[in-house]
Amino acid sequence: MSGAPLCATLLVCCPDRKGLVAALAQLLYDHGANLLEAHQHADAADKMFFQRIHFDMDELDIPRDQLEDLLRIECGRYGMRWRISYSDRLKRVAILVSRFEHCLQDLLLRRRLGELACEIPLILSNHPDLQSVAEQNGIPYHVFPITAASKAEQEAREIALLEEHEIDLIVLARYMQVLSQEFTERFPERIINIHHSTLPAFVGARPYHQAHERGVKLIGATAHYATSELDEGPIIAQDVEPASHDDTVDDLVRKGRDVERMVLARAVRWHLEDRIIAHGRRTIIFH
Amino acid sequence: MSGAPLCATLLVCCPDRKGLVAALAQLLYDHGANLLEAHQHADAADKMFFQRIHFDMDELDIPRDQLEDLLRIECGRYGMRWRISYSDRLKRVAILVSRFEHCLQDLLLRRRLGELACEIPLILSNHPDLQSVAEQNGIPYHVFPITAASKAEQEAREIALLEEHEIDLIVLARYMQVLSQEFTERFPERIINIHHSTLPAFVGARPYHQAHERGVKLIGATAHYATSELDEGPIIAQDVEPASHDDTVDDLVRKGRDVERMVLARAVRWHLEDRIIAHGRRTIIFH
Amino acid sequence: MSGAPLCATLLVCCPDRKGLVAALAQLLYDHGANLLEAHQHADAADKMFFQRIHFDMDELDIPRDQLEDLLRIECGRYGMRWRISYSDRLKRVAILVSRFEHCLQDLLLRRRLGELACEIPLILSNHPDLQSVAEQNGIPYHVFPITAASKAEQEAREIALLEEHEIDLIVLARYMQVLSQEFTERFPERIINIHHSTLPAFVGARPYHQAHERGVKLIGATAHYATSELDEGPIIAQDVEPASHDDTVDDLVRKGRDVERMVLARAVRWHLEDRIIAHGRRTIIFH
Amino acid sequence: MSGAPLCATLLVCCPDRKGLVAALAQLLYDHGANLLEAHQHADAADKMFFQRIHFDMDELDIPRDQLEDLLRIECGRYGMRWRISYSDRLKRVAILVSRFEHCLQDLLLRRRLGELACEIPLILSNHPDLQSVAEQNGIPYHVFPITAASKAEQEAREIALLEEHEIDLIVLARYMQVLSQEFTERFPERIINIHHSTLPAFVGARPYHQAHERGVKLIGATAHYATSELDEGPIIAQDVEPASHDDTVDDLVRKGRDVERMVLARAVRWHLEDRIIAHGRRTIIFH
Repeated sequence: MSGAPLCATLLVCCPDRKGLVAALAQLLYDHGANLLEAHQHADAADKMFFQRIHFDMDELDIPRDQLEDLLRIECGRYGMRWRISYSDRLKRVAILVSRFEHCLQDLLLRRRLGELACEIPLILSNHPDLQSVAEQNGIPYHVFPITAASKAEQEAREIALLEEHEIDLIVLARYMQVLSQEFTERFPERIINIHHSTLPAFVGARPYHQAHERGVKLIGATAHYATSELDEGPIIAQDVEPASHDDTVDDLVRKGRDVERMVLARAVRWHLEDRIIAHGRRTIIFH
Repeated sequence: MSGAPLCATLLVCCPDRKGLVAALAQLLYDHGANLLEAHQHADAADKMFFQRIHFDMDELDIPRDQLEDLLRIECGRYGMRWRISYSDRLKRVAILVSRFEHCLQDLLLRRRLGELACEIPLILSNHPDLQSVAEQNGIPYHVFPITAASKAEQEAREIALLEEHEIDLIVLARYMQVLSQEFTERFPERIINIHHSTLPAFVGARPYHQAHERGVKLIGATAHYATSELDEGPIIAQDVEPASHDDTVDDLVRKGRDVERMVLARAVRWHLEDRIIAHGRRTIIFH
Repeated sequence: MSGAPLCATLLVCCPDRKGLVAALAQLLYDHGANLLEAHQHADAADKMFFQRIHFDMDELDIPRDQLEDLLRIECGRYGMRWRISYSDRLKRVAILVSRFEHCLQDLLLRRRLGELACEIPLILSNHPDLQSVAEQNGIPYHVFPITAASKAEQEAREIALLEEHEIDLIVLARYMQVLSQEFTERFPERIINIHHSTLPAFVGARPYHQAHERGVKLIGATAHYATSELDEGPIIAQDVEPASHDDTVDDLVRKGRDVERMVLARAVRWHLEDRIIAHGRRTIIFH
Repeated sequence: MSGAPLCATLLVCCPDRKGLVAALAQLLYDHGANLLEAHQHADAADKMFFQRIHFDMDELDIPRDQLEDLLRIECGRYGMRWRISYSDRLKRVAILVSRFEHCLQDLLLRRRLGELACEIPLILSNHPDLQSVAEQNGIPYHVFPITAASKAEQEAREIALLEEHEIDLIVLARYMQVLSQEFTERFPERIINIHHSTLPAFVGARPYHQAHERGVKLIGATAHYATSELDEGPIIAQDVEPASHDDTVDDLVRKGRDVERMVLARAVRWHLEDRIIAHGRRTIIFH
């Protein structure tokens, strides 16, 4: 990827009105940006405007802080929420795990293969089990055992560590603890969770046992931004695997693992590529 | 299909014990049957035995009523539920519809193309809308308008008509009336329904509007045997289509139609080919 | 759909350079257009620019012929290929069939359901078999029997009929005749064909027999624009269905039909919604 | 899995005739076997019989060598090819790799998770690159650099090593060397390979570049038994991922990796579970 041009990605969201595409395109053009991809979506029901612009900065005629000043002014005129990121500043990702390794391994493999453009400065866990995986990948591993009594205190320490490391994205890679409202609200649209999904959905313990008893023919997974409403945040990605009566509970768990890691990796990649805007309970995802 | 051999399909289900496969295989072999496909499944949790045997009868050395006598005796020894069907006796299917034509058209097309080996002696509806579709296919169309007041009486008339026509399978092809418990219990494992399925599931009115507001990334459908528990009968088939933020409610409805008709056709075909055993809330499906 | 706003869709394609998005967006904004969707794609290898703009014309301050004059001038400046279509002018589609009805029925059903915004003024065939399907849908059906000797003459008559009816799109819905180069070149990017696809691919007669002998585990279909290179035009859509050793040749043919009609309908819908730009041997498809 | 019953899996294949199911089921029943799953398939075209029987041996009344003697006699009567394997004797798998790690990592992860019941006593490679992966998993890693001049000699050394370690299955996990005919014929139906598959197929170098230029909409992979005909052995599993014009060559390669490792893992699992019978250029796979 050396020699790749310096690029930026701009995401904006505001109430819809005429002229928004022209205004931003003109501003960027006036300063030498070369648009590589631009997708705009207007939501008819909400009357909202969403846009992603991915552009080459190599011939930009102003420094990026001045570009951001101009964007701040222009976006301010239209009441836009906006954010911009740059290809030379990798996002910093923390992965939270418990005992299951499949999602963690998958994310680490994909990063090695160049699929996920990010740094992973730390892995956090409530269990020591996956320490050696972190070590093999040269990533510090921090254990925060959690009990009902210690939860608030331990979460505070975790939050401090995450902020100290300037973490942009927190990935719950089968982290088996429910985050407190304080935690999720500290990192809005910056925590991605993965959970199983079946048709019908099963709540409570041992979902795969319930799915087996009910004889479902699909096993699925959903990746979403974590909010204070458990498993109710904006959905980013979903997929399923076929199941049959032949499948034991172990088989369903295996299929669940396959679809979990594929769906989680997809969601993380889209976030790292600034393809997602969360809006209320929904996401807009630009491909 | 002329010149196809005369075949039979035997489905059995009983508490598991040793020797069941040998006993049935021996009985059929002793009388000249040629096994074409035989699948056996033992459920480890339930300790139940399920088997489907598809065999060529051309060299059977006894008439089929005597074969059935022997099966009755043998299956009786093991406490087996069993049923047999023959390739020269097409199942008789009634289709129940309301106003949506997509599932009905799909079933009729597949029957014309030879995908569904059945007769369709009648179509029932609570609305006159699809009369012309029935006529184009040369199938009598009976309208039973249903109100809260008339429901019991109309259902009684429908049941009488279905029994008079010796209907083997009732397909609810987007029939928008809930059948009474009397109705579903009259035709156990003989009514197939199709309904939308999403992750999460939405109950109540306008499911596609709810799915749109929630931003689901998959639109699915489930075909199941209808029981007195609404939408809770044994699941036969499920599938999904990807959805995105770009999809309007109309788009979700369109995707729902596609997956509904594919899934319903699959379930009906499997039933007609005697591939399904319902057991409690689950199905065993032999492929 | 009554009460839907009057909309236009603009597709453009040209060598990439800076300022293209701004130029078009500004032109449309200056005259009161409200952009509903705008997707831009820059091909890094080819240095080509592709864009689709879908906009609301209700508050346009000039008549559409003047808008087209302005577009002609602006697009001329950049060497753009462009075309525009309007939601109040339905595309006119001719369907060509032979003896198989599944794709034809599917397209007609989808049009009735409102999935395909088009008129279908005529169906052409080299066989009389599907006359009644056309009649049931109130569409004139023209039979042009084709022999090696008559092919050139019959194609000339077909072309004359298609041009007389101002046909925008020709759909080969399992039309089992190879079109001559003269025919395909008369309607560039305006003929959509569907054909089977397997891994590996089988050429020559009886592809499903070959696929069965080879034991393929997927049955697929490809929709593409027809060009003078048989089955080699730009690919629009592809999909597959799983297959197994249990599948007879008839089963493979059935699965082929399912995937053919889904894929063909998808390609036709995208064309009708002006989502496709063909570029060389490839397509850009805006979602 | 401790406490799991001792099980055996019997695969048989012979010209079809009546009584085969009964004969084997009776033999097993007579000696106390409890059938857990039994699937039989008769190929109508070939007149061949295929069967997989999975049975519980806990109450078997003879030792397994005597059972094998009886099977040898019985299978001999019918001209059956047969093989049996036991749950207490894990298959021994060698993995051959070059420089790509994704398939290797996936197989090792799945083994750790209990998805693949096997031992992996050695990893062979023509490059040293993946040495550390092997070490992290405690598996000996043998490097056999291959040049045109050294190929025959190096292959002979590899074969000797594989035989010394009593390897049951050789998995080519993106091993970028073509095996000689001597090699493949030494391990018939015991070498599984994975390769990319697209529609249409591209031969020669840089298939993903060709696929990108051609604008394919699906990226697939095929797992098959390796034979002396390159990439032409019996197909075990195939799958695809959707692709679009947005995908760069790197994206296609990434999608290829995803589908490669899923498909390869599936094929290896089915082989380890004795679910596959190769017959000519096809496979029968019992689920």
